[in-house]
Amino acid sequence: MRKQIFLIIALTVTTISCGPSQQKVEPTNPEATEVWQPKPAKVAINGQTGIPSDAVILFNGTNLNAWKSKNDGSAPKWTINKDGSMTVKDKTGDIVTKEDFGSVQLHLEWRSDPNNTQTNQNRSNSGVFFQGLYEVQILNNNDNDTYVNGMVGSIYKQNPPLVMAAKPTGEWNSYDIIFHAPEFDNSGDRVKAGILTVFLNGVLIQDHFELLGSTEYIGYPKNKAHGDGPIILQDHGDMSGVGFRNIWLRKL
Amino acid sequence: MRKQIFLIIALTVTTISCGPSQQKVEPTNPEATEVWQPKPAKVAINGQTGIPSDAVILFNGTNLNAWKSKNDGSAPKWTINKDGSMTVKDKTGDIVTKEDFGSVQLHLEWRSDPNNTQTNQNRSNSGVFFQGLYEVQILNNNDNDTYVNGMVGSIYKQNPPLVMAAKPTGEWNSYDIIFHAPEFDNSGDRVKAGILTVFLNGVLIQDHFELLGSTEYIGYPKNKAHGDGPIILQDHGDMSGVGFRNIWLRKL
Amino acid sequence: MRKQIFLIIALTVTTISCGPSQQKVEPTNPEATEVWQPKPAKVAINGQTGIPSDAVILFNGTNLNAWKSKNDGSAPKWTINKDGSMTVKDKTGDIVTKEDFGSVQLHLEWRSDPNNTQTNQNRSNSGVFFQGLYEVQILNNNDNDTYVNGMVGSIYKQNPPLVMAAKPTGEWNSYDIIFHAPEFDNSGDRVKAGILTVFLNGVLIQDHFELLGSTEYIGYPKNKAHGDGPIILQDHGDMSGVGFRNIWLRKL
Amino acid sequence: MRKQIFLIIALTVTTISCGPSQQKVEPTNPEATEVWQPKPAKVAINGQTGIPSDAVILFNGTNLNAWKSKNDGSAPKWTINKDGSMTVKDKTGDIVTKEDFGSVQLHLEWRSDPNNTQTNQNRSNSGVFFQGLYEVQILNNNDNDTYVNGMVGSIYKQNPPLVMAAKPTGEWNSYDIIFHAPEFDNSGDRVKAGILTVFLNGVLIQDHFELLGSTEYIGYPKNKAHGDGPIILQDHGDMSGVGFRNIWLRKL
Repeated sequence: MRKQIFLIIALTVTTISCGPSQQKVEPTNPEATEVWQPKPAKVAINGQTGIPSDAVILFNGTNLNAWKSKNDGSAPKWTINKDGSMTVKDKTGDIVTKEDFGSVQLHLEWRSDPNNTQTNQNRSNSGVFFQGLYEVQILNNNDNDTYVNGMVGSIYKQNPPLVMAAKPTGEWNSYDIIFHAPEFDNSGDRVKAGILTVFLNGVLIQDHFELLGSTEYIGYPKNKAHGDGPIILQDHGDMSGVGFRNIWLRKL
Repeated sequence: MRKQIFLIIALTVTTISCGPSQQKVEPTNPEATEVWQPKPAKVAINGQTGIPSDAVILFNGTNLNAWKSKNDGSAPKWTINKDGSMTVKDKTGDIVTKEDFGSVQLHLEWRSDPNNTQTNQNRSNSGVFFQGLYEVQILNNNDNDTYVNGMVGSIYKQNPPLVMAAKPTGEWNSYDIIFHAPEFDNSGDRVKAGILTVFLNGVLIQDHFELLGSTEYIGYPKNKAHGDGPIILQDHGDMSGVGFRNIWLRKL
Repeated sequence: MRKQIFLIIALTVTTISCGPSQQKVEPTNPEATEVWQPKPAKVAINGQTGIPSDAVILFNGTNLNAWKSKNDGSAPKWTINKDGSMTVKDKTGDIVTKEDFGSVQLHLEWRSDPNNTQTNQNRSNSGVFFQGLYEVQILNNNDNDTYVNGMVGSIYKQNPPLVMAAKPTGEWNSYDIIFHAPEFDNSGDRVKAGILTVFLNGVLIQDHFELLGSTEYIGYPKNKAHGDGPIILQDHGDMSGVGFRNIWLRKL
Repeated sequence: MRKQIFLIIALTVTTISCGPSQQKVEPTNPEATEVWQPKPAKVAINGQTGIPSDAVILFNGTNLNAWKSKNDGSAPKWTINKDGSMTVKDKTGDIVTKEDFGSVQLHLEWRSDPNNTQTNQNRSNSGVFFQGLYEVQILNNNDNDTYVNGMVGSIYKQNPPLVMAAKPTGEWNSYDIIFHAPEFDNSGDRVKAGILTVFLNGVLIQDHFELLGSTEYIGYPKNKAHGDGPIILQDHGDMSGVGFRNIWLRKL
């Protein structure tokens, strides 16, 4: 019901203000609809790592300099491994980027821990938060049932993934995520919902989902006004053993 | 201007009908916000090709059985190469899928022809059309200037790409595209714009772009009602030499 | 001691019969040392799978038609998975290629089973045999000790690997192997040792190792004359859970 | 003729000195043929770049610090590109590693220049030299004929490749090479030939080739005694335009 109303209104507005009006004389030469300026910036793709030249690199295997501990702002205590990955160090807390971000495209790879054979939400649970508030869930759901709005690829407690596209336990998975920050007006009211589009291993699992508000473990999503915020990687505190590698984002 | 109006209206509607109303008593236990059904379908990723198990494979190097010539419906005359790619056969016309599609996620890889040193729109020009009407441009813009709404990654004659993220001449590029079909009402009016989100080589270059209408070489986009339609790969007719490989889609 | 003798003799022979003799007048123009015929055959690399065009494909995810059960020649009972891999089906026995091979270059990918937490030789044990007789070992040696001439990458019971280059449990590993068949004279004596060069995940782990003879669990290697033989993948019989994918070879 | 003599002698020596003699009592328990020490070193594979943890990185896209100009020892003038590759800067001369090496495993990726449409030895000619003396040829032989012992993958002027396995013009090719340095005695005589095994794009193209001596453009290979030497990448001096990326080696 809501959707229909929404669309009709939108259409009206679009028709009035945006489409080619019937008063315009339609051009008859192809040059008339060419636009030559401005030129889009060039982005080179690193042939070895696949990282675009305009990316902010958050982790490339060397160090955790882009991060700090959420608890006390100290250097993260997570483990850097010899294969260029890092692993959640249990009970040391979440890690957050030193820099705050708004809308971004984020790439991140993760793997669950083959030694973690716990069940439900305790089998390799982690997650990536945008602006410190909006979580895309990481969980090992291979032979492990949980609530679908808390499974791998869900917007936690808001929306299940379209499909379950994670790889078998122990293999590396890739997230490619488009995040648009919510917008608030001067009085603190949200005037535009945040949006998440998520690919897991190249498969679309969240398709322009409008965030209901912040991720809440208990209760409903909240929409308190805020500005830019950090990317957070979660230490779920239960020997998750989740590994990460190749994390970068591009500001949108 | 349009956008602001749009958003305010949308917000109003959302607030009324969608958000947790203030009358609801907020739950105090985590289980209250868990959803356990229905379970998302499982999708396996082929470890050798990266193709998801629920994909419709349009070209995997073996044959062009999913395609026909646009001109006369005959078997495509394009060339299949020994490396599992295919190449536009000049002057044999576009090729179109036998099957019609609505909204899809599409993966496609392409390369420009190092031997094609023509300029502007004649340097390795091709394109992929959704529903036979909406084109994402393919062009070699390495050291080759053209109008930005006709360059590689543009929605042809509608929107330039956010950035130029193509690889050097001769290297393979990948498109990952989310296409949502436009919707029309019974009287033939468009009630929802088609939408395109495009990644080129993993870089977001079209971000939820609302299609203005059909791709037109001369004149304005049109919005004549239509149903599902084929994927089309373009033979631009100028010795483009464009190659393709690894084409699949998932219905959304 | 042996090596020195061997090399000096070999050198002598080489000098006599092969090198440019001192009687030859050294050419003074570059064309004199050009060779134009015969032309090497062309091999195309499949861009989607990496498989060379002259390869014999043993498993590409679809079926096990190239294989039979070693026990009784029936169709293999191993499991084909949705991600294009296959898994050893415990207690159904080894599988062997229907075709026999001599010297080959072989590519094969394998993974150990995260659920297999047994120790020593029982943690994801399998292996690939050349000519049905010479085994390159597959084993999960992550946090699992065993005898070094029986660990992953060893020529079983003959030679340990140069380094331990396997990936963490559950990740896919690749073998690229050059195998030269031993040669026997008419009286059945071995006149040339078989040779194995092995890369594990791109790392050289067996460097032109001269096989001592057949792989034996008990006792010494044997050198009974034989001709071509099958590739064998081992069912070690202890719930190994080893997975395979992307298996092909080129005849040398 | 030579080969037969060689093999029989080798066999004799092997039988006398190496095989399990008949005097030995063959063991009847499996433990008797287990070897537990020494343990091979562990090598981790970087998940983002594929580089082994024990590699010497010669070029990873950032700088040319591992190299110097062959001409005068100055910093190399070759071009570093935004995609993490580098390109031969014409007429600036070869570049050589600052460090000298003996036997190594080398990985290197290269691409020919689509803009270079010269013929024969002038179409994207470069090469990689081991110990500064032994060249594996780089050349664009797509639709470009030359002498086979000077084509891509040849040991220049010594041995043609087994097959032509290069990719189309402009695509990246990978070399994986095992080089064993020749050995010389105190009087300067070569007592063991250098050896090259080469994979091009995963295809074996040089199979344990015994080097005849140094690479010579005019005249025969030479065998003057020498010690370790640098890796050299060639500037062939004719606008080759050859690109390189991802170069590393492991000492053997």
